[in-house]
Amino acid sequence: MTLAVNLSSRAAGMPSSPIRRLAPLASAARAAGKTVYGLNIGQPDIPTPREVLDRLRSFRQDNVPYGPSEGLPEMLDVLHAYYRGLGLDVERSHLFVTTGGSEAILFVLASVSDPGDEVLAFEPFYTNYAGFSGLLGVRLVPVTTDPSTGYHLPPRAVIEARLSERTRAILICSPNNPTGTVYTAEELDLLADICRDRGLFLIADEVYREFTYDGRAHRSALSLPGLDDRVVVVDSLSKRLSVCGIRVGCIVTRNRDLLSAVLRCGQARLCPPTLGQYAALAMADVPASYMQRVVREYQARRDTIFEALTSTPGVALRRPEGAFYVCACLPVDDAARFAEFLLQDFDLNGETVMIAPADGFYATPGLGRHEARLAYVLEVEALHRAMRAFSAALQAYPGRT
Amino acid sequence: MTLAVNLSSRAAGMPSSPIRRLAPLASAARAAGKTVYGLNIGQPDIPTPREVLDRLRSFRQDNVPYGPSEGLPEMLDVLHAYYRGLGLDVERSHLFVTTGGSEAILFVLASVSDPGDEVLAFEPFYTNYAGFSGLLGVRLVPVTTDPSTGYHLPPRAVIEARLSERTRAILICSPNNPTGTVYTAEELDLLADICRDRGLFLIADEVYREFTYDGRAHRSALSLPGLDDRVVVVDSLSKRLSVCGIRVGCIVTRNRDLLSAVLRCGQARLCPPTLGQYAALAMADVPASYMQRVVREYQARRDTIFEALTSTPGVALRRPEGAFYVCACLPVDDAARFAEFLLQDFDLNGETVMIAPADGFYATPGLGRHEARLAYVLEVEALHRAMRAFSAALQAYPGRT
Repeated sequence: MTLAVNLSSRAAGMPSSPIRRLAPLASAARAAGKTVYGLNIGQPDIPTPREVLDRLRSFRQDNVPYGPSEGLPEMLDVLHAYYRGLGLDVERSHLFVTTGGSEAILFVLASVSDPGDEVLAFEPFYTNYAGFSGLLGVRLVPVTTDPSTGYHLPPRAVIEARLSERTRAILICSPNNPTGTVYTAEELDLLADICRDRGLFLIADEVYREFTYDGRAHRSALSLPGLDDRVVVVDSLSKRLSVCGIRVGCIVTRNRDLLSAVLRCGQARLCPPTLGQYAALAMADVPASYMQRVVREYQARRDTIFEALTSTPGVALRRPEGAFYVCACLPVDDAARFAEFLLQDFDLNGETVMIAPADGFYATPGLGRHEARLAYVLEVEALHRAMRAFSAALQAYPGRT
Repeated sequence: MTLAVNLSSRAAGMPSSPIRRLAPLASAARAAGKTVYGLNIGQPDIPTPREVLDRLRSFRQDNVPYGPSEGLPEMLDVLHAYYRGLGLDVERSHLFVTTGGSEAILFVLASVSDPGDEVLAFEPFYTNYAGFSGLLGVRLVPVTTDPSTGYHLPPRAVIEARLSERTRAILICSPNNPTGTVYTAEELDLLADICRDRGLFLIADEVYREFTYDGRAHRSALSLPGLDDRVVVVDSLSKRLSVCGIRVGCIVTRNRDLLSAVLRCGQARLCPPTLGQYAALAMADVPASYMQRVVREYQARRDTIFEALTSTPGVALRRPEGAFYVCACLPVDDAARFAEFLLQDFDLNGETVMIAPADGFYATPGLGRHEARLAYVLEVEALHRAMRAFSAALQAYPGRT
């Protein structure tokens, strides 16, 4: 007799990526000869610094061995110098190298929360927070932010109303994916206060740290006073060096017990990628002018997309402050259907746009139906063309409201 | 008022690596001028195929982008050809590329079991199975195997006695880490029968597939008839190509629902390492003679270490059949203390050995205290010297029994 096998409830509850679900439609549109401007995913087009690629090509070892679970010693040195260069009081022993920022989130969530525990996050949020929470059996509790305030934090009472006995941490991302919001010093202080008073970890995703505009400075959660035992930064080199595929990130915390837990998680997976780390060592040789040029380029793109969106009738948004995303409210019945329309039923002189409908970035059912995220990861001229197609599509869309 | 923060129970329960815990003692011994032969970890010294390293150095893209969550299309093609070359009925759509075999284990365990569920594994087992189970809140239930049978499977009734309502899968590794055992066709049939009858997944870790000796053939779980919905192979290129640090592995299953769950796990972490995959594409160009030479080399090493151990008074073991490990029973009060003695208190003409005490490979408390795992990852001449030091240390050890 054969007894059936079943998958886990955990598996059934894992969300599928809202960013990637349109991919088959985009492939079909391209196959049909359309130019599809991809504004749907945070895949920078900026060239990787020459130093990093040259370093990779100079790999001369005769095999590719495991490295230490906490990262190559030279990688820890380079990262340590990077954080010190930011003026942050970080020791080398506060660092742990991960397989991208993704693994950093997984290991930190695992180390601070048990199945059934809760972690607060401000929606719309980076979808993969929900994926990792689901994998670990942790409940991600959303606090909704408002497009009309530029997705800045709600008042303290609103946040505290979402805390429970099971809450273990508050998870933030600043500069924010998907909204482009950069939290102010006052907002960080508010969160620090709540975490101090309520015995919570503050997990800060700062992978877009350098991507701030209009002269705005980023304040790292690592600079918050009196929170040494509860601040954890998750970080990644992916966006900073345009090396998303090397899968190198890190965890930074001054909490030794947390680092020890993270190390034990890390030993189970042996080590982060040796080749990616080897290439990334060259970040020490990349001149400051590289990042300055990249930020200038993104600010110009931000201006281009913001001006195009604000001059499109019915579209509402605040000027994004950082990262390379903008979330906008669209005059449509359903942004997911509009995204499909763009790929399936529309083109302007053979050109169209791929966007990320925002419902996937919300945990609260029904929210985000009239919003979309656009990633400005194309050059200004291409962005102009993309936005012309986007505006025309909004006029042509049958579900316009 | 500041309320304290606490780590998760999950974190508290994560085992620390038994293989890596002796590292500080080894560093001290080396700093003191001793030669330490590292037989403690499965880090092959064999050179990576030239084709793979040349391919890496030829990386010409101007940035390193994310790839698809399921792996680069070309990587899937190459892996598909590899499995077809083994005579296995595997479609390209049955494959999912992972960040090493490690992530393959994590995603498969997450997809088939919920917190509190049980997975059966034969101890001594690869420690990281326990690490990933702990991360996911899954209980790894050990079925003890016997050194005197060469760690082959116990009778069906013994295995079935460990099953419960919560059992979701049986997890095997063949050729085995840490024992070097290769399960026979009959043993696989037995496990297949149990999985069929009891509604269980059979998760087969086959990362050492090619490493079998004395003309022994490896039988893949993928060749078991009538189990298409419940066989999952976890695999890795690490050992096969001496590329442990590239972090490229894969999952192979014909169960579409399981693949869909794995894909959703994989989307959360975006993609496996692009550089490692890029290099690994060259596996298609590596001549069959490479693997034949590697296996001949390991068989010679296996012979060297087996002869040395069997001629050491008090040591008991069966001839290992595959992989590059041997587990041996030692005439000592405590193999962990003996491992420390080797590094701290002993040398033979300035030389000593680092071994992995076997207690870390057992889940049942107290087991493995008189066993150790030795990885034969050194050339024959170095192995001879290592084993001379090892035998002399056994004579000199005060806790000899």
